[in-house]
Parts: sequence; C-alpha cells; structure tokens
Amino acid sequence: MKGRVFSGARPTGKQHIGNYLGAIQNYVQLQDEYNCVYCVVDIHALTTLDNTAELAGNTREMLLDWLAAGMDPQRSIIFVQSHVPEHSELHTLLSMITPLAWLTRLPTFKEKVRQHPENVNYGLVGYPVLMAADIVLYKADAVPVGEDQLPHLELTREIVRRFNTFFGPVFPEPEAKLTTYRRVMGLDGVNKMSKSLNNHIELSATPEETRKRVLTMVTDTSRVYRRDPGHPEICNVFALHGFYTADRTEEIARDCRSAALGCVDCKKSLAASMNEALAPFRARRSELEQRQGLVEDVLADGASRARAIAAATMAEVRSQIGLLPRRG
Amino acid sequence: MKGRVFSGARPTGKQHIGNYLGAIQNYVQLQDEYNCVYCVVDIHALTTLDNTAELAGNTREMLLDWLAAGMDPQRSIIFVQSHVPEHSELHTLLSMITPLAWLTRLPTFKEKVRQHPENVNYGLVGYPVLMAADIVLYKADAVPVGEDQLPHLELTREIVRRFNTFFGPVFPEPEAKLTTYRRVMGLDGVNKMSKSLNNHIELSATPEETRKRVLTMVTDTSRVYRRDPGHPEICNVFALHGFYTADRTEEIARDCRSAALGCVDCKKSLAASMNEALAPFRARRSELEQRQGLVEDVLADGASRARAIAAATMAEVRSQIGLLPRRG
Repeated sequence: MKGRVFSGARPTGKQHIGNYLGAIQNYVQLQDEYNCVYCVVDIHALTTLDNTAELAGNTREMLLDWLAAGMDPQRSIIFVQSHVPEHSELHTLLSMITPLAWLTRLPTFKEKVRQHPENVNYGLVGYPVLMAADIVLYKADAVPVGEDQLPHLELTREIVRRFNTFFGPVFPEPEAKLTTYRRVMGLDGVNKMSKSLNNHIELSATPEETRKRVLTMVTDTSRVYRRDPGHPEICNVFALHGFYTADRTEEIARDCRSAALGCVDCKKSLAASMNEALAPFRARRSELEQRQGLVEDVLADGASRARAIAAATMAEVRSQIGLLPRRG
Repeated sequence: MKGRVFSGARPTGKQHIGNYLGAIQNYVQLQDEYNCVYCVVDIHALTTLDNTAELAGNTREMLLDWLAAGMDPQRSIIFVQSHVPEHSELHTLLSMITPLAWLTRLPTFKEKVRQHPENVNYGLVGYPVLMAADIVLYKADAVPVGEDQLPHLELTREIVRRFNTFFGPVFPEPEAKLTTYRRVMGLDGVNKMSKSLNNHIELSATPEETRKRVLTMVTDTSRVYRRDPGHPEICNVFALHGFYTADRTEEIARDCRSAALGCVDCKKSLAASMNEALAPFRARRSELEQRQGLVEDVLADGASRARAIAAATMAEVRSQIGLLPRRG
C-alpha cells in the first residue's frame, strides 16, 4: 500500500518559477509514489498578520497554479486548512501536552522575535504545534522537508511521543522525506527569488512580461564589456538555463566564456526557452481560470475527503484522552 | 429582549454543597433573567492534565447534579465544550492576535508556574485565550464572575477590542456580572470546601453519609467542654445552619452561647436540616440517574443549539479575517 505524504504551504498568491522548481514540481512527482495530502495553510498565514486582506485571493491564485502545474485533485487531497476545523481542534488539544520551553527554545522562534519584537503573539509561539496537528491529523508517514525544517519535524515527533505516552499509541511518528529544495535566485542574482522582493517571474506571466523581466536580470558582474569573457558558473542567467535550456548548456557556457555570446542575447534565449517550457502550463492555467466555481468545487471536495480522515482521527483522540463521547 | 449569559465550569464530578451554594444556585436563578449558555469546559480540564481518566465520568456526574438542581435544558443551552469544535477554532484564531506578554503577566499564570514548574504547557499559557473564545463565540452580554476572575474577563475584553480593531466590529465586549460567590468552608473549618481535600459533603450523598460527615465537622475549637459557652460567629457548623436552618439561627446562637446546646446535638440538627433541604434534589437526582441516555440526549441537544450560534459567529469571523469562504 502507498504511504501517505502531508505537506502544507502558505497562501502566497500567484506562484513564481522559484516556487515551481523548489516545491511544486516535487509535489507533482510525489503523487506517483504516495497518497498525498496537500494543504493551503491559511491559518498559519495569520501568525504574522501580514496581508490578511489578500488571503482569499492569494489562496485562489495559488490553487490555480497548483492545478495547472499538475497537482491532481483526483489523486491527491487538496484543501484549505481553515475549511477543516479538526486542525484547530487537534492544535488545541496538543497545546495541552506541549511544554512551552520546547517552543521558545526553537531557533526559528528566536529569529521571529528578533525580526518582529512588537508582534510576538501567542499563536506565533504555537506555530509548530499547529504544524504538528496538521501532519498527524492525517497520520502521515512522511513529510517532504528541507534541511531547515528538520527541527520542526523533530518537534512534531516529540509531541507525538508525548501524546502516545500520556494517552496511548494513537499517532505514528512521521518521517522526514528529506528533499533538496532547489534554491532559485531572484532577478537580482543576490537574493532567493521571492514575491516580497519583487525579484521573481510568475509562472502565469505573459511571454512579453517574462521577456522584459528576464532582460533586467543581473548577470556576471565582472563582465563589464561585451567583449569580456563571462563566467557562467557564477551567473544566475546560466543557472536558469540549466532548468529551461538543459540540452544546450555546454554550448552556452562555451560561448559565454569565449565572449561569442553576449549577455543580452543569452537572456533573450533564456526568455525564449522559459516561454516555451511554460507554454503548456500557461494554456492550462488560463483555461482553468475560465471555469466558474472550479476552485470552490475542488476545495469543497478536498475538504470533505480531508475531513473524513480527520474526523476519524479526532474521534480516536477524544476517546483516548477520555473526553465524554460526542454524539452525531 | 433578554441578554445572554455565558458561564463555563470544569467537570469536577459529583458536586458538593459548596458548589451548590457558591455557583449552581446562581446558575439556576440567572435562568429567569437571561438566556443562559452553560458549558462544561472539559478542554480546560486538560490544562493541568489531572484525572483525565475520570473526565467522562466527572462530566456525566456533574451534569446530573446540574439538572437535578434545576438547571433547565429547555430554557438554557447546556453542553460540553469538546462537543462544539468552534471553541477550538476560535481559540486558534484568537491566539494569532493575543500578545504573549498579555498572558505571561497574569498573576494566575505566575501562580500556576510556581505550583507546577514541571508542567507549564503551551495550553496552560493560553488558558485565558480559550476562555475568551468560549465567551465571545456566543457574543455573551454578561459573564457571572467573582472578584478573582475579573482580570481574566478584562483580558477577554482586551482581546475583543484588538480583534475588532484588526478585523472590524464582530464581538461585543462582555460585561462582568459581579457575583458574590459564597465561600463555603469544608468540614475542617479551615479550608474552602473542596473535593480534593475530602472536606466536602456531596449533594447526592445519602442522609446517613451526610449525618456521618456532619458529625466529623470541626466546631468552635475554644469550646473544650460541653459546659463551655460557644462562639457561633466563628463556628462553621453555625455558618451552615445559616443556609440550612435559616429560620432558627437566633435560637441556635443563643443556646450555643449559653451552652444549653452542645456541639454534637447542634451537628445532629444541622444534618437533619440539610437532609430535609436536600431531599427533593436527591429524589430528582436518583430519578434522573435511572433514565437511560438522558445525559447524552441533553448534551446532544445542547451541543446542536450551541453550534447553531457558534457556527454563525465563526462564519462571520472567517469572513472578517478574510479567509477563503468554506462551502457547505
């Protein structure tokens, strides 16, 4: 039998190529090997109270990108966290057995306190407890995580052990499925690609927008004149050729080093490859956008399938804790 | 139109006369003036992880006492917190806007850390947030509280103001309905009556048990011999006569001071008054105990009426926060 994977992503709106190469592509592939549960964690998005006005829109846009990229609501369960109240129920119950010190000692918590000392809410402290609830509600066998997320998953496992010790063996300990998230740099060539830095290219951008943005990319800064030889190994344009022009990278590297290929032409050719590679996605995306009520239908179906699993887990949890059974 | 009162009580099992005189009597009376929502807060009982094995039994026993005492499930909404998932949902959302410092500065939190330094769980810190969720989920106008609970209710009001400032005016600020909770002393005459100190008399005790327990009561300790004059004003037996033999207190005080009445006879007469006063309650209690499924029926009906209000509030909350609407 296939194992179950759970993964959650904050609703960040239209996805960019960094999101795709870093995460979505992996989500799509995992569907062949696992029963996947993919959750838009909109309640997590409230921990920092940013952009709540755009929450609903960002959820919709991200979902359209997910679907167009091949995340398949027939095979996977795709839903929104706040549509399944069991996430909050389990979060509240797990909060009762999670020592405060386990949370305040986390490096990510300390970092957030440093970044937003004026905005340390109770829910921010408990963010890893909500994450644990998200995962174990589905008794997930595996969670795809990058190295940086390992401490959080280890905390989930500690919470599971503590719950099972108090109340009996309800939850399996989820395993980390260590994933090498490709770190895609932004147009500036310095920072990770990110919407908030506006150094990104949206998957659903038009070919013309894509070309314009690619042409603003920072290349090898040591190559001052067209005639200077370039250094592809330190050039972000070349790195993206690696994803989008994979069959011609040797040729590009050679012509860059010999100065046969200038940066402008190199970027034009990257834009062309990118637009070609993204064309099927974009066609499908705009087709999906036209379908009235599609997002709502997918999410309602996903929530109902998620709840079937979540409700069974919660009945078991309540019974093991010893709460008076709920009827109906 | 009648206002709405909310009150929650932890499931502590069979209730004693201290519970009745201190709280239940008041709950019964409030039903004439208010639409009352009475909640057995079983999730709160988890904050200290005591006696979870007895949770379900304690919930049932407390409910039987409530019903026998005249808390009326036709007029009031009587239910169990864990049966209405909206409590956890709102708790989780309110946790995102409640500054951690508001919680850790509370004297009750500091006291609990002192008492159980090994047992400071995340949920213990957030106990007042769950309490705020309990109350405002029903948009209660008033909450009966003793002086000692005023800081918690003030915190609820602060959370309400903060929510309304962030997301628009959803919640009214609940008012404190300041209640003089009668402090009933235990059989030892020194500590407040409490099950955990085993210095209590259960409402549903048999007349014989009641008599036995009353006869163990500590009276005026300065009265060494039967012939010594007594001091009713410092005697806990006399204090209870005030509740149960109210029409003869002057006579009792006089005969105690003159040593005409000895402590043993005084206690026998208290036991007789108590048994007489509690007889109708006890008859009704044992009748209710016989009815198979009664507790379950009452709680299922209560939960469904509670959820009708809670679900409407949560739909409003989610929409004001800006979460993508949930369908169905």
